[in-house]
Amino acid sequence: MQIKENPTIGFIGTGVMGKSMAGHLMDAGYKVLVYNRTKSRAEDLLEKGAMWKETPKELAAACDVVITMIGYPHDVEEVYLGKEGLVNNARPGTVLIDMTTSTPSLARRIAEEGEKKGIFVVDAPVSGGDIGAQNATLAIMVGGKEEVFEAVRPIFELMGKNIIRQGDAGAGQHTKMCNQIVIASTMMGVCEAVVYAEKAGLDPELVLQSISTGAAGSWSLSNLAPRMINGDFNPGFYIKHFVKDMGIALAEAEAMGFHAPGLELAKSLYDQMVQMGEGELGTQALYKLIREN
Amino acid sequence: MQIKENPTIGFIGTGVMGKSMAGHLMDAGYKVLVYNRTKSRAEDLLEKGAMWKETPKELAAACDVVITMIGYPHDVEEVYLGKEGLVNNARPGTVLIDMTTSTPSLARRIAEEGEKKGIFVVDAPVSGGDIGAQNATLAIMVGGKEEVFEAVRPIFELMGKNIIRQGDAGAGQHTKMCNQIVIASTMMGVCEAVVYAEKAGLDPELVLQSISTGAAGSWSLSNLAPRMINGDFNPGFYIKHFVKDMGIALAEAEAMGFHAPGLELAKSLYDQMVQMGEGELGTQALYKLIREN
Repeated sequence: MQIKENPTIGFIGTGVMGKSMAGHLMDAGYKVLVYNRTKSRAEDLLEKGAMWKETPKELAAACDVVITMIGYPHDVEEVYLGKEGLVNNARPGTVLIDMTTSTPSLARRIAEEGEKKGIFVVDAPVSGGDIGAQNATLAIMVGGKEEVFEAVRPIFELMGKNIIRQGDAGAGQHTKMCNQIVIASTMMGVCEAVVYAEKAGLDPELVLQSISTGAAGSWSLSNLAPRMINGDFNPGFYIKHFVKDMGIALAEAEAMGFHAPGLELAKSLYDQMVQMGEGELGTQALYKLIREN
Repeated sequence: MQIKENPTIGFIGTGVMGKSMAGHLMDAGYKVLVYNRTKSRAEDLLEKGAMWKETPKELAAACDVVITMIGYPHDVEEVYLGKEGLVNNARPGTVLIDMTTSTPSLARRIAEEGEKKGIFVVDAPVSGGDIGAQNATLAIMVGGKEEVFEAVRPIFELMGKNIIRQGDAGAGQHTKMCNQIVIASTMMGVCEAVVYAEKAGLDPELVLQSISTGAAGSWSLSNLAPRMINGDFNPGFYIKHFVKDMGIALAEAEAMGFHAPGLELAKSLYDQMVQMGEGELGTQALYKLIREN
């Protein structure tokens, strides 16, 4: 398959990450239509020349490709499968790309519904956070048909660097779950090590110099441990979103019939933080729970 | 302080790592005396020209610097503080360097006992494993007096690259505990993600390509996940040694009055593996427990 040479691209979800991603598409010369639940959060893009659409339905009808970067699986379900949603209102031949981190089974269901209407659906969650979105260095994990992936690859290349098709519909979401599963337990280790260093009377920054380049090294240790030490709990990645992702991963693991004890523990700790009203903090704030434990 | 210009160096513990480390000292022209509980494991070094000593006592009496790289804290205690041990038999002015991963409190006790006899003691555990030892790229985490550290720094520089004094006696061991604490939970995350990928029907190597360069990235993911996927459970780092280290870290955390839930969980999982008779496997074999869970 091929898509139109200069496709009109719709973008739904102009939050911190979506705004940067849509901006890159505009910078590359694409005509971009946007919709967001809270219009004020699309202002930057509108000033830059994006065209506003009042509903996903209107947007879908006017686009060749629609990208979504929204909140929770129930939002994805509504935006895609609702009566006013994308699948029911996009033209045949449209490619729908969900870059939200969402449920693998929902991704498969949307792809199936799309197929019935001649609409191509790809799941393509990302890793790399706000910085990766800003710098167009996101890792993009794609599930969907090979030919559809190849057709929209040039669009992905404007937003990311490590772009891999992992398999058919749902495979992108499954891969993202692997990513979150690794991070979940790694974060416990990083928080516990920083707390240990402090309680042992060490200089935690000096400890990081010793341990971050060897077998304990990780992105989380290099990037989030310094924020813990400096008392910076601002969200790079929100706890409330991480809890959502871990919940999906746990449900999928359960459905596959295996236990992920580290993931279960990490989710229970982050759940405690949400219950304490700290879901709006960044994931590195787990440090506080460990320290005060 | 200064040590003799061409100090005679004793090396106790010529296992996989110790052999490489002592070899680097010999390559640099140092006269090296060796002792090992099992003499056959020192053969390579003896052939290379190292001089054998029958006991730690004899070795201590003939050296200006003694380095130990042995097994468990009780071995360290015996070799250092036993009647036939280093502290009681080294000449005043000798520098004793314990590179074993051992107990911070024991490191402090040895340093105190040494001080009474005019002997300088430094704890300097390492990270980087057999490969780091072979390539002289170990991270070396040092606890001890600044002037003693500076005096023996040239010796460390023949074995490692990231050499940092973390504080007074025991600080090297505490820093190594931080290293092991990070690894403990990270390993759970890596194992669970690989199992998830396989059970979800993904190509786990392709998944690693997506997730290893981003926020989930870690040394363990890049280096040990491929071994899990290939069914290679040979020890880079033995489970039985890791369990020892985690036990020390847990005891220290408890003594400081804080809980490290990730570390506790990881230790309990690795304990199960030891009970199943798999302590001789590499730490990546935790994958098997998660997979069959």
